[in-house]
Amino acid sequence: MRSSNIAEDRPEMAARFVAPLAVSMGDPAGIGPEIIAKAWAERGANDLPPFFAVGDARAVAAVWDGPVVPILDPAEANDAFARGLPVLGVDDGGHISPGYPDVDGARCALHSLEVAAGLARSDAASALVTGPVSKAQLYQIGFSYPGQTEFVAERCGVSRENAVMMLAGPSLRVVPITTHVALDLVSSMLSIDLIVAKGRATARGLQKNFGIERPRLAFAGFNPHAGEGGAIGREEIDCIIPAIAQLRDEGIDASGPFAADTMFHARARSQYDAAVCCYHDQALIPLKTLHFDEGVNFTLGLPIVRTSPDHGTAFGIAGKNVAHPGAMIAAIRMAGDATERRAARLL
Amino acid sequence: MRSSNIAEDRPEMAARFVAPLAVSMGDPAGIGPEIIAKAWAERGANDLPPFFAVGDARAVAAVWDGPVVPILDPAEANDAFARGLPVLGVDDGGHISPGYPDVDGARCALHSLEVAAGLARSDAASALVTGPVSKAQLYQIGFSYPGQTEFVAERCGVSRENAVMMLAGPSLRVVPITTHVALDLVSSMLSIDLIVAKGRATARGLQKNFGIERPRLAFAGFNPHAGEGGAIGREEIDCIIPAIAQLRDEGIDASGPFAADTMFHARARSQYDAAVCCYHDQALIPLKTLHFDEGVNFTLGLPIVRTSPDHGTAFGIAGKNVAHPGAMIAAIRMAGDATERRAARLL
Repeated sequence: MRSSNIAEDRPEMAARFVAPLAVSMGDPAGIGPEIIAKAWAERGANDLPPFFAVGDARAVAAVWDGPVVPILDPAEANDAFARGLPVLGVDDGGHISPGYPDVDGARCALHSLEVAAGLARSDAASALVTGPVSKAQLYQIGFSYPGQTEFVAERCGVSRENAVMMLAGPSLRVVPITTHVALDLVSSMLSIDLIVAKGRATARGLQKNFGIERPRLAFAGFNPHAGEGGAIGREEIDCIIPAIAQLRDEGIDASGPFAADTMFHARARSQYDAAVCCYHDQALIPLKTLHFDEGVNFTLGLPIVRTSPDHGTAFGIAGKNVAHPGAMIAAIRMAGDATERRAARLL
Repeated sequence: MRSSNIAEDRPEMAARFVAPLAVSMGDPAGIGPEIIAKAWAERGANDLPPFFAVGDARAVAAVWDGPVVPILDPAEANDAFARGLPVLGVDDGGHISPGYPDVDGARCALHSLEVAAGLARSDAASALVTGPVSKAQLYQIGFSYPGQTEFVAERCGVSRENAVMMLAGPSLRVVPITTHVALDLVSSMLSIDLIVAKGRATARGLQKNFGIERPRLAFAGFNPHAGEGGAIGREEIDCIIPAIAQLRDEGIDASGPFAADTMFHARARSQYDAAVCCYHDQALIPLKTLHFDEGVNFTLGLPIVRTSPDHGTAFGIAGKNVAHPGAMIAAIRMAGDATERRAARLL
């Protein structure tokens, strides 16, 4: 998947310095440190670009006995990457005990995120990958964002509405139009404008980050059987169909609304590049059914590339050396690929 | 999966006559006749029990050139089954043109269903398998049921509420608590009583038809992340959690509510025998994502065994010899298995 023809086509670009990726560790008591270390250990087999972790180096040492290379500047990471996991330290993790989160750990997670986001924003890092945090812990220290995505969007000067969450696995990409809201409120939140905005951002994001020239967007209906022409619900007629028409008028390859239950088997998935869904579970059920251990959260609409593994802190298994690094590896890889594609578009 | 130890354990039962299964053809212009004929053709490889089709024999001849054996009585079917597809004729199909449904075809479909259901009800057939019908066509001839399930339930003297739709594939069984209703109305329809009733019927149905002594039921939350303790929706707290508690008090192994997006990957599926879901797409998305071509609709709570392939008439491909019989084969096989298990419980 990774395009390596930039240097071949334009030899003058071959020596161009590519900044490493910044990976925030997330909660030091969660599985973040372990899966980042494991991703480094498997860097060769997965052809991962150079990256460095941002967080408390002791959180890595507590769960992994591989080589850690402390760095003071991201510019050191590319060289250090061959010798060990480069870690740009932040040192307010308090007492670190895997599986037992506390507010010191939450402060460390927030500090790591802040630093990593800033480095990506300033181009000292080529992309931002965020490890899993505990919202419950973060709220205790005054964090006031729904999640890391909104925090990063603000740091990038992008309104929350324009930062679009896409979940991606090897055979499926989904965009939920609404996310962490009570299902009973979703209908009242759907509007033509909102659906059009999400569709536009999705199409642009697929072009910019995934190299898809003319993205095919498939829209899910809200009701069973996509409402059967109004017989079981009107959200399709009132919002989704007009939004699709407007997107098509803008030249975007939008289709639907489709009965959501018929959209996600293999033959159906081959017909589109992203499924745009009305609510959280409509998007996340098929994604996690198919790709539970390798789902990546990709934030579209930002000036920087930002990805994260699509799972939580998993405190229950932290420190037991059983966490799968698959989603973290996929998140790093996808961020690296997107960085290359963005660079290629600017040439 | 099929238990064959009845005769071994009790030789006196070996000679017991087992009635054939009745398979209604569904709409003669749909793919029903073709997939029933193909199921017969593949009976050996799939170890299918003897069955006979109920419908207009011309609908089979129009799409298949294999052997058809007209029968006048279900008792002839077991012998005829070795020579060709036994067809118990109903003769009001009008002009049959695959892919072009009309009201004559709808009358034929309804007549076939009525006859097949009656034969199953009277034990002349051991089970009922229903082919796909067109509701739009049926409504034109005055059919007033939401679907075939409610029609069959009435013929069996069972109220609609107690006839529970279960969708089953090789690695997943799901029960939607609500079905073809606008998603915006689902919250107001959920109640402790309804959820308990569906849970009970599901547990009993799994014991009776699937031979699972102590069925494990996993309940899905209604909201994202199962409501996060009330932070994003209260249906879990108000209805689902109390219903699960009541079912557990009754001795049923009920668990949850679980975040629906984390319930359907392979490791999660191994933890339960059926997922009980709040609404249509929550149940049908994972089922069809995993088992699009082999999903079976099994009606629990009836005195008879009734299954159907979980797909529609597919008029668009009727008569083109491209329809997959997988779901029909699975429906016949599952009905046969359930019939054997019910018989074994009565010994």
